[in-house]
Amino acid sequence: MRVLGVDPGLTRCGIGVVDGGGGREVRCVWYGVVRTPADQDLSRRLLTVADAVQEAIATHRPDVVAVERVFSQTNVQTVMGTAQASGVVALAAARAGLDVVFHTPSEVKAAVTGSGRAGKEQVATMVAKLLKLSEKPRPADAADALGLAICHCWRGPMMARMAEANARAKELAKAHRARLAEAAKARR
Amino acid sequence: MRVLGVDPGLTRCGIGVVDGGGGREVRCVWYGVVRTPADQDLSRRLLTVADAVQEAIATHRPDVVAVERVFSQTNVQTVMGTAQASGVVALAAARAGLDVVFHTPSEVKAAVTGSGRAGKEQVATMVAKLLKLSEKPRPADAADALGLAICHCWRGPMMARMAEANARAKELAKAHRARLAEAAKARR
Repeated sequence: MRVLGVDPGLTRCGIGVVDGGGGREVRCVWYGVVRTPADQDLSRRLLTVADAVQEAIATHRPDVVAVERVFSQTNVQTVMGTAQASGVVALAAARAGLDVVFHTPSEVKAAVTGSGRAGKEQVATMVAKLLKLSEKPRPADAADALGLAICHCWRGPMMARMAEANARAKELAKAHRARLAEAAKARR
Repeated sequence: MRVLGVDPGLTRCGIGVVDGGGGREVRCVWYGVVRTPADQDLSRRLLTVADAVQEAIATHRPDVVAVERVFSQTNVQTVMGTAQASGVVALAAARAGLDVVFHTPSEVKAAVTGSGRAGKEQVATMVAKLLKLSEKPRPADAADALGLAICHCWRGPMMARMAEANARAKELAKAHRARLAEAAKARR
């Protein structure tokens, strides 16, 4: 499974592509960062981010796109820009016919370092270690994007199994309700 | 000037197109709303919104796109979805080569009703009156989108003049600094 991870942002948007096998083995395919100037129009900045993600998808042909789930932070203006960037990233994936999954920063930290409260440096160190890179990926946004992709390589199969189990349970419940209705009809 | 106004949202996204002349005269060209099911994947929902805005731009060929500026509200999850929707709307406009302007809800309310604290019904009533519609545009999201477009018809020219004045002032300041530097050089 090839995962394209994105740490969305307008100032810096990290993109990382990781191959995962069945087990814990992960391999770095590519990573990079796209920057947009703060004095530029918001719509232009979003266009630059969207184009970069589109290009990365076309070049690396991932099976799925993992995006960091944006939470409200102290700086409302920043979080709005980040949310808007994550919107155009999800759109680019949908346009390419890819599924988009969201993971929270603490899910990523927990998956990569074992602690949901790990710092940026710890995440970068563990990402480099797991991907056998000679040095920490820079900037931190690129390391976060790779961490997100690793997180999805590991959590993805479990999430798929859970979704399958949920769908199966729903179907069983539906069949059960149908049988009950039929029995009630027969009694009338 | 033809303005396409968008009240961004995932559940309902209002779109309204208004023609403005030089004065206060405004004319309704078209309005509509795009809805996406809450149980659908976020990326699919964003795709539906983006496609609807793209289609409205292609059909009505506006000169500019006005989008409601998203603020943090009480419900963080809703505001994130709205911000993501506003991101793909701005992207659609940028892809069509159009400028995107943002107005806050209170700027729209103030422009249309005279009060920044007007309620949704008041806005819809005034929008219908200003556009000489026989009834209030429904749903409220469509009325808000039309209000946004009207707001831009009226505020746009002033904003353009201010931007021009700012650019001119910046240029003058730059020229002044250059002259100062030259004078300093000559003195050395």
